[in-house]
Order: sequence, then C-alpha cells, then structure tokens
Amino acid sequence: MDFDIMGSNAKSAERILSVADTNQKNKALEAMAEALTANAESIISANSVDLEQGQKNGMTESLLDRLRLTPQRIEGMSEGIRQVAALADPIGEIIEGSVRPNGMKIRRVRVPLGVVGIIFEARPNVTSDAAALCLKSGNTCILRGGKEAIHSNTAISEVLRKAIASVGLPADCVQLVTDTSRESANQMMRMNKYLDVLIPRGGAGLIKAVVENSTVPVIETGVGNCHVYVDKSADIDMAANIIFNAKTSRPSVCNAIETILVHKDIADKALPAIKAKLDSKNVEIRGCARTAEILGSSIVPATENDYAVEFLDYILACRVVDSIDDAIEHISKYSTGHSECIVTSDYFCAEKFTSMVDSAAVYVNCSTRFTDGGEFGLGAEIGISTQKLHARGPMGIRQLTSSKFIIQGDGQIR
Amino acid sequence: MDFDIMGSNAKSAERILSVADTNQKNKALEAMAEALTANAESIISANSVDLEQGQKNGMTESLLDRLRLTPQRIEGMSEGIRQVAALADPIGEIIEGSVRPNGMKIRRVRVPLGVVGIIFEARPNVTSDAAALCLKSGNTCILRGGKEAIHSNTAISEVLRKAIASVGLPADCVQLVTDTSRESANQMMRMNKYLDVLIPRGGAGLIKAVVENSTVPVIETGVGNCHVYVDKSADIDMAANIIFNAKTSRPSVCNAIETILVHKDIADKALPAIKAKLDSKNVEIRGCARTAEILGSSIVPATENDYAVEFLDYILACRVVDSIDDAIEHISKYSTGHSECIVTSDYFCAEKFTSMVDSAAVYVNCSTRFTDGGEFGLGAEIGISTQKLHARGPMGIRQLTSSKFIIQGDGQIR
Repeated sequence: MDFDIMGSNAKSAERILSVADTNQKNKALEAMAEALTANAESIISANSVDLEQGQKNGMTESLLDRLRLTPQRIEGMSEGIRQVAALADPIGEIIEGSVRPNGMKIRRVRVPLGVVGIIFEARPNVTSDAAALCLKSGNTCILRGGKEAIHSNTAISEVLRKAIASVGLPADCVQLVTDTSRESANQMMRMNKYLDVLIPRGGAGLIKAVVENSTVPVIETGVGNCHVYVDKSADIDMAANIIFNAKTSRPSVCNAIETILVHKDIADKALPAIKAKLDSKNVEIRGCARTAEILGSSIVPATENDYAVEFLDYILACRVVDSIDDAIEHISKYSTGHSECIVTSDYFCAEKFTSMVDSAAVYVNCSTRFTDGGEFGLGAEIGISTQKLHARGPMGIRQLTSSKFIIQGDGQIR
Repeated sequence: MDFDIMGSNAKSAERILSVADTNQKNKALEAMAEALTANAESIISANSVDLEQGQKNGMTESLLDRLRLTPQRIEGMSEGIRQVAALADPIGEIIEGSVRPNGMKIRRVRVPLGVVGIIFEARPNVTSDAAALCLKSGNTCILRGGKEAIHSNTAISEVLRKAIASVGLPADCVQLVTDTSRESANQMMRMNKYLDVLIPRGGAGLIKAVVENSTVPVIETGVGNCHVYVDKSADIDMAANIIFNAKTSRPSVCNAIETILVHKDIADKALPAIKAKLDSKNVEIRGCARTAEILGSSIVPATENDYAVEFLDYILACRVVDSIDDAIEHISKYSTGHSECIVTSDYFCAEKFTSMVDSAAVYVNCSTRFTDGGEFGLGAEIGISTQKLHARGPMGIRQLTSSKFIIQGDGQIR
C-alpha cells in the first residue's frame, strides 16, 4: 500500500467534504444506502469467498456468523446509513462566542476532525457504519478491516465510493486499506501526517496493540468490566431484575456486567433472589467465601482473575462487601471505566456512588445495558470510549468533531 | 524513580481532590501563593545552584535568563496562582441532560481528567503554573522538568506540597519526578495505568519525542508556523501594522508569524509599506522572485525550507501569490495548524479564508499574537493545542476536564 498516496487523497477529499453542506452529505448517504441494496447480490457473492476461506481455516461458527452477510443484513446496513442521514448535522454549530474588550469577536465553531482512521476486525458492516458516520460529520476515512473479511469489505467500499462520486463528492471520502498484513496496520498507526485520529474497534488485544504502537492520537473503545453494587437499602426485586438484564440480555457485549457486589446486611436475602433469576439462564456464579456461605456449594470460588476479566459469557463474579466504600474501592481497582450501577433507595449512597465512581457511565437503579449511543439519544455510535480524553462513553457524530476559533477584527494588534 | 508508587499516590490523591469543593481548592491555591512568597529566599538559593551549574555547562545567556528566578519573578508566580484561584470552577458543571422515553434521567457532568503528566524544559515557573491549573480543575499532576532546573523545581514543588497539605488536601496532588534522565521520561510516557493525559511543554524536539514514544494519550502543543495573507482588497496600513505586530512584538513565541503571503494585485504597493515598518526592527525578509522584483536586491531568496520552519526570530518569509486560493493552498501545505490571518475588506474572501483554513485560530483583520488563553478570555493557559483531538487552540482549565454520564432510574432494564 502506498499510504502517502492514500493519506494525501484523504486530505484532498477532506478539503471538499469539510465544506460540503448538509444537503449534499445527505444526498451522498441516500445514494450509499440505495447502492448497497442495489448491489446486494455482488456483495453477498464476495462475502461467500470470505466465508469459504473462513471455513477452510477452521473459523468457529460464531465468527462465521459475524462475518456472514445476507440480504436482510445488507438491508440493515442501508437502514443504518439512512438513520445517520436523519441525524442533525453537527458541523458549523457555534459552540460559544464573545466579544473581547478590544472589540474582537471570537466564536468557536464545530468542524470535522479531518481524516479518521479505523482499524477493525471481522464484521464487514463496520465498513458502511463507519463510512456513514464519518461522512455525515464531514470527515474522510481510511478503513482497515480484518483479512477474514477482505473480499466483503472491498465490495462494500467500492459500492460506497461509486455512490459518493455519483452525487459529486470525492470517492476518496472513503478509502479501504486492502493490504491486511500486520505491517500495513503498523504503518497506519504512524500516519501522523495524514490521520487526525485512529479508532480501533474490536477485541481487547487489537485495542491494546493500537494504544501501544500508534503515534497517531487514539480513542480507546469498548472494553467493559462493568459492575452492579447492591446497597443494603436496595429493593431486592429491582436489584435481581437489573442484574439479570445486565448479565443475560446479551452477555457478549461491553455494557454487560461481569461482577456484582452485595452489601453484607442484605446479602442473605438478596443473593438467593438474584441466583434464582440467574439460574433460569444457567449463569455460573463465581463467588467469594461469604457468597458461598449463603448460596451453598454450587458456587465456584472466585479467583483474583475472575474480578479482573470480561467473561463476555454466562458467568458472573460475586463479592459480599462490608460497605459502599468497599464497593467503590473494588470498582476503582478492577473496573475498566465503562459502566457501573448502584441499586439503592438511599439518597446519600446514590450521591456518593455517582460522584466517587470514575467511569464513563454511572447508573442509579437501572441496567448498564443502556450505555449505547442510540439509548442515550446520540443516534448511531462509532464506539464507546473508555478513555477520558476527547470523548467518554458512547461516541456519536458530535464526538467525531473538533472546533476552531474564528476571530474577526478591524485592525487589532497586541 | 518508582513510577508505580508515584502513580498510585497520584490516583489516591485524585480520589480526594476530584470531590473537593471549590472553597477547599481555592484555599489550597491561596496557601500555595503565600508559601511561594514566604519561601522566596530558599527557592532563589536553590535556583542559584542551577544557575551556577548552567554557567559551568556553557548555557547561553538567554537560556540562563529563562532559568533565573528573582523575588519579582516569584511574586509573578504567586500572582499567577491567585489568578487561577479567581477562575470559575469548571468541575460539576452539567454540560447537557435529558429524560429518555423510558423515564431515565441522563446528565453529562464535567469531571477532572484525573492524573495529568507534564514534561517540560528549562523554565521553573511551569512547576507552579501547571500545579495551580491542575489543582483548580481537580487533577493531580506528575511534573517532570528539565535537569537544568532540577534544584529550582524541587524547591518549588516542596513548598507547594506543604502548602497543599496545610489546608488538608493530599500533598501528592503535586508530585515532581526528580530523576531527570532520558529513561525516566520514557518511563513516564508509558504510565498508561496511572496517567490520563501527557502534555509536553517545550520546543519542537521535545514535543516530537513525546508524540512518537508515548502510549499515554498526548496533547500536542505550541509549534506555530503562522501566516498573514494580504488580500488584494486589504487596507495596506492595517496589513502593515498587523504584520509588524505579529512578527516583532515577541518573535520567539508560537503565535508570532513566520510567513506573509501577498496578493499580486496589491504587492507593488503593499510590500514597500510592509518593509518600511519591518525595517525599523531590522527584520530580514526572505522572499520569492516576485518579492525581490518589487523590494529589490536586499531581499534574501526564500528556500523551500524557509516556508516550512519557525524562525522564532527577526526573520520573515514572503511570497507573492496569484489568488486567495493559492494562499490557502500554501497555508495548507506549510502550516502547523496554529494561527493564520487574512487582511481583507472583501466579505466573500473573509468567509472563504475562515472556512477553508484548517487551523486552531483563524483571524480576519487582527494579529495572530492574540492566540492566548488570557486574550481569549479563558484565563491562564496550560498550552496551545495544535491537534484536533480533545482540545484545539489555547487550553484553559476547562480543557483539563473530561465528563461522565450519570443516569438515574427506578428499575429500568433494556
């Protein structure tokens, strides 16, 4: 790959896209959505090459399922693009402004980030999701998917590029890195001259590699070791419902919980009620000694590691704690800073938990599963940031923007 | 240095500082300001050790001057801390909020970044400036100054730490890395477990090293290859005044200009007027062939490199351009994205320049020297960001914050 050429094409396209008006961008998105549906057959045929290769290489059925495209799934991708088109355009928004004592008028205006790089893994729908979110927010993008999905990603990106060009915007608004070697990923992580940000989307391993090797500014996303703390004042039914929902509604996602902490004064009553609900989905509980005392010998003893990992499965760690302070201490030690919840009816405990717990989303009496751009009302999301710089929590199109100061004067000097 | 101990001390202190109220933080700042004045003598005596060492090592007089502390300069540091105390506290601000259709109440609240690392060079006043800005914004900080100032920095940080402890906040709100080896800087750049952000303050070499080697998120600051474009519709006197001010009022700073671009239709009249003003400060002009045609043989021919570098001196590159588009093209090629200015009386040219030029601060008819936290009304600044992620342009205490979502419900599940 010639990353210098791709980078400079992305920059040239950005100069046009960054000043395109909302109508033009929405027209491009509409064309992208239509083109995906119209070209579903050829995309599915490219996808079948990836699937065959995957089967040959012994890919698991769940990975193959992530990779698989069907007419319905492609319709879903089109629908996703139309939803992005329907979002308000953040570009040009005046964030703040004032007149200085010397008469200079200053305003801070929302502008695109510029060129966004995204490195992702096996799911080809990320190609269209990311392209749509970037385009709406005025950013050109350079996408690099996994080698497992290269034929699918190539077909999708060609369709999108043609659609963008058909409305008079540069095809290079969206570019795909077709070299899926490790070397190409490393080169991309050093494209400081061209990339304004790099967003890894995928498992913990990918994210760690990008954070450690990238010289381009990175937004860390999506690793969630999330907790529910059941306070001694909790409504036990509510706690059991929230825990059941947060653990079992979709265990493989980052906003699912991995550990519950239960106050010792309520553990005797709460733990059996919680276990009864979890048993209906055969959730394995790994507990501390006090948990086992209450729930009996079916409880697997929890190791230190059980508190530290994302199970992403029907497994839940459990610890009985002496106080809300111990719960907060546990969370501060093990959490990845994604989402945590307290179930309580005590005003001061709710206040303490929300102010002391340092995570992107802190809940009182509701499921952590709500940490999501759509659920928060931000529209579609490009990921969930677990870092504090730039964006934190679900990232919608506004989080794909920067700002600049525009200063108007009539000859002021300093 | 044991960075694990420093990091974990910073985190512990952060848990207390992040929820300290404004009164407490202001008391600490007041104590810090008083303590600097009260201990001026011992700080100056530590500083004299650095100065002696510097003289022995052949430090230039201008570097020695940056390093030197006097009673007046220490008073200035105290005054700087008091100004930070007077700023509004950004922490706790509700940035946005809404009620979701299911009744969940979501609010996004401003919180500290957490632990801020700052790597800086020879100026010991950065120790107190950075400590004050971090403390007011609820951040603990780990500071690493240059080895030239180690005795001064140690003395200042000890004074500040005692002052902070005297009002009941943890001394570890401010920590100084006393090992000034290159290895210690490298270790600091990899403190991802503890540092939420790393801000380099210093020359282009330091900033490049940090950007290239840090795995902690970095905010790039302060390299400014700034431009003034003189449009054909410009008021020539205004253009000459702005250029004179932006070049000569303080040539060594990042918001000073390095290149002017002059429209060919006005160059005949504008260039001699500009040169006449610049001559009063003996500014050397390095120009293109057309510049030399107009201004005569005293003009040094400009090389490609002259357009690319920060002179930080009484030197100015000059190019005659055919159009505003050529000017924008030149800026997009050579600018570091700091500050640029158009001098014009044409509405459409002003609009085009401010929308097409992709820099942190874009001026119409005023000097680029205004790019500064104080001048923009943000209060004291920790630096001027030239990247687009997180913060862009002058960074005040608000730019040292992040946010978190707090979600209140009564049993909602998804």
